[in-house]
Amino acid sequence: MNTFHISPLDRSLQPDIQAKIDNLNKPLGSLGTLESLALQICLVQQTLSPVLRHPCHLLLGGDHGIEREGVSATPREVTWQQMVNFTRGGGGVNMFCRQHGFHLRIVDMGVDHDLSPFYPAPGRLPAVSPSAPAYPLPILNRKIAPGTHNFLHGPAMTDEEFSRAIDAGAALADDCHREGSNIICIGEMGAANTSPSSIWMSLLCDIPLDECIGAGSGLNDEAIVHKRDVLRQALDNFLKWKEESGKGKEESGKGKEESGKWKEESGKWKEAALSYFGGFEMVGAIGAMLRAAELRMLIMVDGFIMTACALAAVHLHPACRGYMIFGHCGDESGHRRMLQFLNAQPLLTLGLRLGEGTGALCAYPIIDSAVRMINEMNNFQDARITKYF
Amino acid sequence: MNTFHISPLDRSLQPDIQAKIDNLNKPLGSLGTLESLALQICLVQQTLSPVLRHPCHLLLGGDHGIEREGVSATPREVTWQQMVNFTRGGGGVNMFCRQHGFHLRIVDMGVDHDLSPFYPAPGRLPAVSPSAPAYPLPILNRKIAPGTHNFLHGPAMTDEEFSRAIDAGAALADDCHREGSNIICIGEMGAANTSPSSIWMSLLCDIPLDECIGAGSGLNDEAIVHKRDVLRQALDNFLKWKEESGKGKEESGKGKEESGKWKEESGKWKEAALSYFGGFEMVGAIGAMLRAAELRMLIMVDGFIMTACALAAVHLHPACRGYMIFGHCGDESGHRRMLQFLNAQPLLTLGLRLGEGTGALCAYPIIDSAVRMINEMNNFQDARITKYF
Repeated sequence: MNTFHISPLDRSLQPDIQAKIDNLNKPLGSLGTLESLALQICLVQQTLSPVLRHPCHLLLGGDHGIEREGVSATPREVTWQQMVNFTRGGGGVNMFCRQHGFHLRIVDMGVDHDLSPFYPAPGRLPAVSPSAPAYPLPILNRKIAPGTHNFLHGPAMTDEEFSRAIDAGAALADDCHREGSNIICIGEMGAANTSPSSIWMSLLCDIPLDECIGAGSGLNDEAIVHKRDVLRQALDNFLKWKEESGKGKEESGKGKEESGKWKEESGKWKEAALSYFGGFEMVGAIGAMLRAAELRMLIMVDGFIMTACALAAVHLHPACRGYMIFGHCGDESGHRRMLQFLNAQPLLTLGLRLGEGTGALCAYPIIDSAVRMINEMNNFQDARITKYF
Repeated sequence: MNTFHISPLDRSLQPDIQAKIDNLNKPLGSLGTLESLALQICLVQQTLSPVLRHPCHLLLGGDHGIEREGVSATPREVTWQQMVNFTRGGGGVNMFCRQHGFHLRIVDMGVDHDLSPFYPAPGRLPAVSPSAPAYPLPILNRKIAPGTHNFLHGPAMTDEEFSRAIDAGAALADDCHREGSNIICIGEMGAANTSPSSIWMSLLCDIPLDECIGAGSGLNDEAIVHKRDVLRQALDNFLKWKEESGKGKEESGKGKEESGKWKEESGKWKEAALSYFGGFEMVGAIGAMLRAAELRMLIMVDGFIMTACALAAVHLHPACRGYMIFGHCGDESGHRRMLQFLNAQPLLTLGLRLGEGTGALCAYPIIDSAVRMINEMNNFQDARITKYF
C-alpha cells in the first residue's frame, strides 16, 4: 500500500493573509465564512492570491454485502443502474458538475454488475468539456471485487483488497493533479453505504452506535430498528473476531507482554474496522483524500458517507484535515456530530441526502466566492474609502 | 404613487409540479431545499420547465439623517465613496455580480453627495457583459433628495418623497423586466440603515425594539447602548407625532367617531412608519419588489435591511411574499426572527453582514441548481432505474 507524506498546513503566511483580508473595503469580518475559507485556501496554496484550477469530481461506485440484510431503502441494483445513468448525464451529480464546470470521472470501485461495456478503450481518455460533456461518459475500471462481503458474518474485504482500494483512489487523485487540478471533490454511489459509515463514525468518534444510525436514503421507523439490530450484531461480531484473530493488537514486544489485553487506546483496531466494514468506494475515497492532501490539493467533502471517509482519512493522517472543505450538513442522524468531531463548519445546510457528492458540489460557488473576494475586492486604499475601524 | 396589482401564486399546477419532482431519479425528498425552491419557481413561472433569464441586481444607495446621531460604525461619507467604488468594479457586490452573471445597476436614490459626474449621458445605456463589464459603470440618477431628514426629530421624508421613491424603484424593476429579466436581486448601500430597519421590524413584527437592534456594521457594546437610546427616543417621538398629526388615524366616519383613540389594529400607522423612518434606498427597494411581484418576477431578498424592506412590501401587499426567495440569514440581531415572521427559509447562513445584496447574490447558484434539477435530472423511467419507494 501507498505511504502518504502529508504536510501540516504551514501557517507562517497567516498574518499576511489575514492582514490582506482585513484591509478589504468592508466592515471587519463582514464576509464571515468567506473570510475563514479564503484564509484556509491561501494556506493550502501558500499564497495571497489563490486560484481554483480544473476542478475534478470523482464519483466512486461500489456495492455492499450488508445490503443483503435489508438495511437500505435503496436496493442493490440501483448502484449499477445509477452508474450507467451517470454515463448518460441524467443524474444529480451530472447536472451539478455541468453547472460548476467539474470534470467528472465515474469509477467502478466494486459494483456488483458487469460494467465492462462502459469501460473506455485502452489509451488516453478523450478530453471533455466540463460544462457540456459528450455523453456517454466512460466508467473507469478500478473494480476491486464485485461488491464487498457481508460484514455481518466477517470482514467486508481482505487487507490486500483494502490496500488496492486505497492505491486506486490515490492514483485517481494523481490523475486529476496531473491534468492541472488543484481542487477535488469526491462522491459515492453504493446502496447500503450509510451502514458502514455509521459503524465507522461510532468507532472513530467513540459515539454509541445507536446515535450514529439514521434513515439512510429513506427507511421507515420499523426498518431503522432492523438496521440498528443488524449493525449492533455486526459490531459485536467484529469485537469477537478481533479478539480471536488478534487483529489490532500491538505487534511490538510490549504488545506481546500484554497479550490478550485489548488496547483500545492504541487506535490500531480502529484501523482494522476500516477494512472490516468499509466499501470499496469508501476506501477508494480515503486513498483519494490522502493523496490529494499530499499533493496540497483542496478536498471538498460531501455528506454523511464522505464525512465518514474524511474521518477515517484524518484518523490515519491527521494533517489531511487542513486540506478539507466541508460542503454540506445533511439530515442523516449524526452527520452534524461527525462534523463537530472534525471541528468542521459545513458551508451549506440544504437538507440534501442524495449522495453522489451533490452537497459538496452545490457548495463550490461559495469556495469560488471566497477566492474572488481575496483576489478581486479592492482594499480601502485602492477604493479610496475612509477606513472606519 | 403607483398602485400594484399583485396576483397570489396560482397553485393549480402544484400537484403536477410535485409529481415531476417526486419522480426524478433520487430518493423521495432527497434534494431537500432544492425541491421546495423548484416548486416555488415553477409556481411563479406557471410552468413545469422554469428558466432563469437575464438576472439583474439593483444596488440602491441612500443616506440617512439619523447617521448624525452616531448610531453607525460606518460614517456617512462611506456611502458615496462605496457608490463610486462600485462604478470601478472593486466592491463586494461587483465580484458576485460578475461571478453569477448579474446585470448590475448602481442607483443613486438619495446619496448625500454630488454624484452627477457618474450619471450617464442621456439616452440608452450601453449594453454590458455581466461577467466582464466595461468599467466604469454609470450611476443612475434617481435621487429623491441628498439623504433623509434625521428621524430623531421628525419624519425622514415627506409623503410625496415616499411616493417618488416607490415609483423610482418600481420603474427600475420595469426596466429589468423590459430587458428580459425574470429574476431580480436588490441590495443597498447606506450608512446607518440598520437603524430604520430595526424600527420597521419592531413595528411590523410587533417585537420590542431592543430585541431588534444589533451591532450593524460593527458597533461595540457601548455604542449599541447609545443606538438603542437614540432609536427608543425616535420611536417615542414618532408615537407622539402621529398622535398630534392624526397620521394613521382612520379617516372614515368610524375613525372620526373614535377621534383621539389610537387604532393599533388598523395597521395604518404602520404604513406611516415607513416614510417616517425609511431611507430612499429602502423605499425604492419596496417599490422594486412590489413591481417585480406584479410582473411575476422572482425576487431575491438579501440580509437584515432588505428583509425589513421585504417585510414592508409584504405588509403593503401580502401576495408579493410568494415571489420572494430569501438568500441569506446574517448575524444581525433579529434577522432570524424577521425571517421566521415571514415564514422564510434562507438558503445560506454564512455570517455575512456586508450588505450590497451580497448574501442574496451568493445564493444564486442554489436557485440555479433547483432549476437544473427539475429540468435536467432524469426521472426513474428515462434513467431505467428501479423505482424504490
